[in-house]
Amino acid sequence: MTAVFGHLNPDTDAITAALVYAHLLSRQGTPAQAYRLGELNFETAFVLEQAGVDAPPLLSELPAGSEVALVDHNESAQSVAGLKNLTVTHVVDHHKLGDLETSQPAVLRFEPVGCTATILMRLHREAGLSIDATDARLLLSAVLSDTLHFRSPTTTAADREAAAFLAPIAGVTDVTAYAMQMFAAKSDLGDTPAEKLLKMDYKVFPFGAGKWGLGVIETTNPGYVFGRQAELLVAMQAEKAASGLDGVLLSVVDILNETNRTLVPSDAEAAVVQAAFGASTEAQVADLQKRISRKKQIVPALEAYFAAHA
Amino acid sequence: MTAVFGHLNPDTDAITAALVYAHLLSRQGTPAQAYRLGELNFETAFVLEQAGVDAPPLLSELPAGSEVALVDHNESAQSVAGLKNLTVTHVVDHHKLGDLETSQPAVLRFEPVGCTATILMRLHREAGLSIDATDARLLLSAVLSDTLHFRSPTTTAADREAAAFLAPIAGVTDVTAYAMQMFAAKSDLGDTPAEKLLKMDYKVFPFGAGKWGLGVIETTNPGYVFGRQAELLVAMQAEKAASGLDGVLLSVVDILNETNRTLVPSDAEAAVVQAAFGASTEAQVADLQKRISRKKQIVPALEAYFAAHA
Repeated sequence: MTAVFGHLNPDTDAITAALVYAHLLSRQGTPAQAYRLGELNFETAFVLEQAGVDAPPLLSELPAGSEVALVDHNESAQSVAGLKNLTVTHVVDHHKLGDLETSQPAVLRFEPVGCTATILMRLHREAGLSIDATDARLLLSAVLSDTLHFRSPTTTAADREAAAFLAPIAGVTDVTAYAMQMFAAKSDLGDTPAEKLLKMDYKVFPFGAGKWGLGVIETTNPGYVFGRQAELLVAMQAEKAASGLDGVLLSVVDILNETNRTLVPSDAEAAVVQAAFGASTEAQVADLQKRISRKKQIVPALEAYFAAHA
Repeated sequence: MTAVFGHLNPDTDAITAALVYAHLLSRQGTPAQAYRLGELNFETAFVLEQAGVDAPPLLSELPAGSEVALVDHNESAQSVAGLKNLTVTHVVDHHKLGDLETSQPAVLRFEPVGCTATILMRLHREAGLSIDATDARLLLSAVLSDTLHFRSPTTTAADREAAAFLAPIAGVTDVTAYAMQMFAAKSDLGDTPAEKLLKMDYKVFPFGAGKWGLGVIETTNPGYVFGRQAELLVAMQAEKAASGLDGVLLSVVDILNETNRTLVPSDAEAAVVQAAFGASTEAQVADLQKRISRKKQIVPALEAYFAAHA
């Protein structure tokens, strides 16, 4: 049985891709089981509820040599513990290729599109396999989530085509209304502790000789997040110290207005943000304006800054 | 213009894949030019002549940042010099994933099939693009070459299907006769210097803390090769010293009888061959019997040996 899973701190694309790819592999003769590597966020919980699908089991460890299929990630730092001792047989991803190696020839399918779901849709069509209403809703949700309903600069024509193909199968007649419901669910953060808010969509990147943690909160209600600014800044400082990081940033992305105001815990980060983005920090908030994609707009600017100051 | 090329010491799959993928990319809106990273072997020269196609230009270096598409390989040791400074935008391959990383999301298409040509045939069909007679002959030749006319254990059902699909388009009515012509051309080694015979189909692999060079000569006339055993062993020792390798082996594969007798230059290699394959070396030749695939039968056994003795 091949274990299929997306990245740590899973988002909607990571969870739905695991579910749909496990189903596809099983239909193609490779028995597979979907897993998750962390808690569902509120958006993903909403999507699974709408689709009538249970969350996949939480995976913490696998016996050495187990066959695994990775979706929506490929770097070991974002994957299950001990990945190097597992046998990677399949990868479907839309990120840059990192430190992955395989011990045998494997099926790798990477495309520079906005989400894994778009690639999975193509895999079905290429194989001449139909997509049922449940899988179509899962994939459509992932497209809308990863592209912020086509607002993100990572969006490609292929993602728009995938959504247009999937929506009628999923029985979603008003895609805009459904996307707004998803974003409202995502924004309903309730009494989530500040440490969890920071880590909801959070990745650690090597920059220069050090490491930075970059969190993103995509929300239709940025006022709620800034209302908790003081405790979030404390959580960021604590995480920075606990994990030996050189910097931590938390970008609060206003989905509807497509703006990014980023929390900056100390002068050290403020100096880098000034140099990399030309943005000054006031009262521990930097206005990064229309930079709403971590992958395409935040990380490359920081990489360029550290490459020039190595 | 994207530069498309296969591995160093190119074989028929490496050369034809570069030609056909450059053509496909160009048709899909990405202008591309095929190159080769070394001399054509006699089989490939025969195939290009039959297809009426010129050899692609020899590539030695590219400006930093150039966009490249890799076919039939992915490891930097088998690729153009300075690969890490180039921008890899596409990879089509059937080998295990090595040390490749990409700076941006790229198109990666890996499948565990017998040759790159089979994947290229699928890319055309998925895109709804026809394959012309010339490209069909190039791809068919690569399938027959890499699978040794379906004798190699790397052969999959997909490779047989690809050949059956391609042969009528290529106008090849007797596939067996055409394969025999290819193998005869490959086996007509004439007065090729021993250094060139060693390097005709030769790859360097990292094993444990060191590096080994593994050559293969696939031939219908092994007697000719063993007639030149003494000079080949001298060439192997010279290459080992010149390139600072820990071991060199040259497998002489009898295509028609599907057997492998391997030249062993020193006791150091003989000890590893004994441990990894259970094969003793007599008069500097080890009988590796039915192990005719470097990828599937030679490399994994050596990797397992060095992993256990690291």
